[in-house]
Amino acid sequence: MKSEAELQLNGDGALRHLLTLKGLDKALLVSLLDEAEGYLKPEGAKPARSDALKGRTIGNLFFEPSTRTRASFDLAGKRLGADVLNLDVNTSSRKKGESILDTIYTLEAMAVDVMVVRDASDGVPAFIARNVKDFVSVLNAGESDASHPTQGLLDLLTIRQHKADFGNLVVAIVGDIQHSRVARSAAHGLETLSVGELRLVSPPAMAPDSDDFAFARVVDNLDDGLRDADVVMALRIQRERIGNLDGVPGIDEYFANYGISEERLELARSDAIVMHPGPMNRGIEIEGTVADGPRSVITEQVTNGVAVRMAVLEHIARSMS
Amino acid sequence: MKSEAELQLNGDGALRHLLTLKGLDKALLVSLLDEAEGYLKPEGAKPARSDALKGRTIGNLFFEPSTRTRASFDLAGKRLGADVLNLDVNTSSRKKGESILDTIYTLEAMAVDVMVVRDASDGVPAFIARNVKDFVSVLNAGESDASHPTQGLLDLLTIRQHKADFGNLVVAIVGDIQHSRVARSAAHGLETLSVGELRLVSPPAMAPDSDDFAFARVVDNLDDGLRDADVVMALRIQRERIGNLDGVPGIDEYFANYGISEERLELARSDAIVMHPGPMNRGIEIEGTVADGPRSVITEQVTNGVAVRMAVLEHIARSMS
Amino acid sequence: MKSEAELQLNGDGALRHLLTLKGLDKALLVSLLDEAEGYLKPEGAKPARSDALKGRTIGNLFFEPSTRTRASFDLAGKRLGADVLNLDVNTSSRKKGESILDTIYTLEAMAVDVMVVRDASDGVPAFIARNVKDFVSVLNAGESDASHPTQGLLDLLTIRQHKADFGNLVVAIVGDIQHSRVARSAAHGLETLSVGELRLVSPPAMAPDSDDFAFARVVDNLDDGLRDADVVMALRIQRERIGNLDGVPGIDEYFANYGISEERLELARSDAIVMHPGPMNRGIEIEGTVADGPRSVITEQVTNGVAVRMAVLEHIARSMS
Repeated sequence: MKSEAELQLNGDGALRHLLTLKGLDKALLVSLLDEAEGYLKPEGAKPARSDALKGRTIGNLFFEPSTRTRASFDLAGKRLGADVLNLDVNTSSRKKGESILDTIYTLEAMAVDVMVVRDASDGVPAFIARNVKDFVSVLNAGESDASHPTQGLLDLLTIRQHKADFGNLVVAIVGDIQHSRVARSAAHGLETLSVGELRLVSPPAMAPDSDDFAFARVVDNLDDGLRDADVVMALRIQRERIGNLDGVPGIDEYFANYGISEERLELARSDAIVMHPGPMNRGIEIEGTVADGPRSVITEQVTNGVAVRMAVLEHIARSMS
Repeated sequence: MKSEAELQLNGDGALRHLLTLKGLDKALLVSLLDEAEGYLKPEGAKPARSDALKGRTIGNLFFEPSTRTRASFDLAGKRLGADVLNLDVNTSSRKKGESILDTIYTLEAMAVDVMVVRDASDGVPAFIARNVKDFVSVLNAGESDASHPTQGLLDLLTIRQHKADFGNLVVAIVGDIQHSRVARSAAHGLETLSVGELRLVSPPAMAPDSDDFAFARVVDNLDDGLRDADVVMALRIQRERIGNLDGVPGIDEYFANYGISEERLELARSDAIVMHPGPMNRGIEIEGTVADGPRSVITEQVTNGVAVRMAVLEHIARSMS
Repeated sequence: MKSEAELQLNGDGALRHLLTLKGLDKALLVSLLDEAEGYLKPEGAKPARSDALKGRTIGNLFFEPSTRTRASFDLAGKRLGADVLNLDVNTSSRKKGESILDTIYTLEAMAVDVMVVRDASDGVPAFIARNVKDFVSVLNAGESDASHPTQGLLDLLTIRQHKADFGNLVVAIVGDIQHSRVARSAAHGLETLSVGELRLVSPPAMAPDSDDFAFARVVDNLDDGLRDADVVMALRIQRERIGNLDGVPGIDEYFANYGISEERLELARSDAIVMHPGPMNRGIEIEGTVADGPRSVITEQVTNGVAVRMAVLEHIARSMS
């Protein structure tokens, strides 16, 4: 059986699905970032548009709720001229007990060319990609704890806009690494771009136990993690996990030990940037003044998210018949 | 008071609303099927598009939840250039106690030209059609157990693609006939097209008690129903009905007695096609291998569904001022 | 801190946000009504369209459920060529605990130019308007009990279509004045247009206690309120308020004392018009035969609502870079 990395390429080595950044060819990764840059406009200007997906149909299948990622894909599709079908999959089909595969066959039969899939279970986007017909592309819009490749791309683009040389970069990702698809996809991309050092900072109970981060340094002390970092990425913490795990006793203690505050940020380099995938829990994983401060690039990440999704859509559309 | 069949035609005998296939003129029925064929494209090609509904507004009023029928109408409308308004009628207006008629008056006043209505109560689409102004068309997208005319059209189109001569055809519909709007609309159309034989196969407790099927043969033994059939249509069973009715004891027994399995299908003609309106309960009314097998035309039905809805929309738009 | 009235104008005195009709310049108010007239078409004709918002993105942020106002803004935006993003803000972001401001920053970063906001709390639209970047416009689509300016505009437009001279007009608004944003916005506009007399008719427990209506006459007897009125506007009553307040004992008594019935309407002028913002509780605040009768202009209000929203959108788009 093909790996996800192989599965997402067509016979010519061009991108057909986007399932994971793990093992994605560096040249292809860089070209996606370059293409995304082309969709950025000065703030307040009309957003970039094209007809690259005119006549194409995008189905947003969010089996897990989402406002911002769905909105980002929705706008990316509309600004490329696609017809966008937003499926509220929770409330109807699942209620009727329809299988994922039957939903997919149905959309395929309606000539939905691109399926944007978010699911709480591991492997669902790849499972769908293995089962669709040749004319369908599958984009992973968030998969369990495993992968969130468009988030990874937008994170890489944001870093690249501020930091020229990945080889000398120290990146610290802080939070519940174990359950974070955002951390995993960022790590996959940073490894491909040969980042200088990747530090994963978390309470011991939230440290990664997989091989996804083989090349990274696992750190349980925030000061050690932040010292001389160029990039600090705070992760959203699920409130329900705090207080239920050893070493994650309560919100106040979490903030005191792992929250990105103005004070702790002094340890990072003076030109460090601060990132967060959103939505933020201000006062838990990040101090509000940091989120709104001069080092924050959080809203740039959102802007880059639309650009990255347009680039991916346009890229896969080029291979469509 | 005009019958539904009369009500749906305008003064010139052209289709204005689509409420039922019962009593629909054969020439008109056939022309709708012919027009739908014109919207079919080879698999993987860009779907058919036109500007036939450019400047028109379609309101999807689903008082009953639906994913696939709503998606099918949504795409049909968008691919014809219409503005599509999806109304989540359950959660808001009904909560506020607004009457159906006031909702209709409101949409009419917003210049919604086409109202696509799904409702769990009998007679709602016709009730709306009787009360709208001259410029509004009403399309029935599923009405209680009574009628689902676009489903009927897509079923007829699918049969016609595989079987040339309706007069020699044996069609077996299997399942909860009594509660099935799908069976009723198929029967209405098949009667108009003078089908050779229509068999309705169900447990006695689910047999029809109405006159809708006067010309059909009611059968309670699946073997008798399937023998030499050209077309086998399995109906979706509501799980909650199983076990609560005499003669419908449990899921396993239902499948054993009324499920369309590979084995039972041997009784049908060797070139029989198998249909299902979806979403399927695999292993209850249909065996998974049958659904995915060479005789299955289930995904073709979905494709035909979009084409039929485009044809109906385009047809009624021709009569609009 | 700028008042709402000041906040909604840009440096040139042109409208940038629409937050309130209170203090809105008369010339500007009248020009919005005039522009809205330009979007009206004969019944049954294709609705007015333009490309005035082509390339713009409208985000509908309804923190409070709504069918008709959301549908009206949705159609207004689509008919002007905008991309419309409907955000179901209740179910996702709020569940994750995201602050309103972070939602706004996110939409801003996605290049959403116009934010249409409905919220159950006082001051939210102005709060958002104070915090968005220069290129964003905020439209109030219903704010607590305080304000509903596009409703006010559509009410003024409807009155103006039937009654030439505001200076000689007697307008009676009947219902739960205290909790009515509809009454407040109508009053703001009527004051600017120097209406002859504004009567606010309600049970004592629902009489206004604010200064919003300083120029109006508060009346607790419906006969006194309706006598010789030119315009009668019934307000929607929240059923849950009836029976829970002194002087609002039950539905039957409410209708007997404050319902607009055929009989009571005899007291008004013979050419009086009857208005209601919808959705109606027929038989409570208004008799069904009145709602459907010759004096009713209720569906005209709905039609004018789309026109007014198109006019406001087009107006603010003219100032966009």
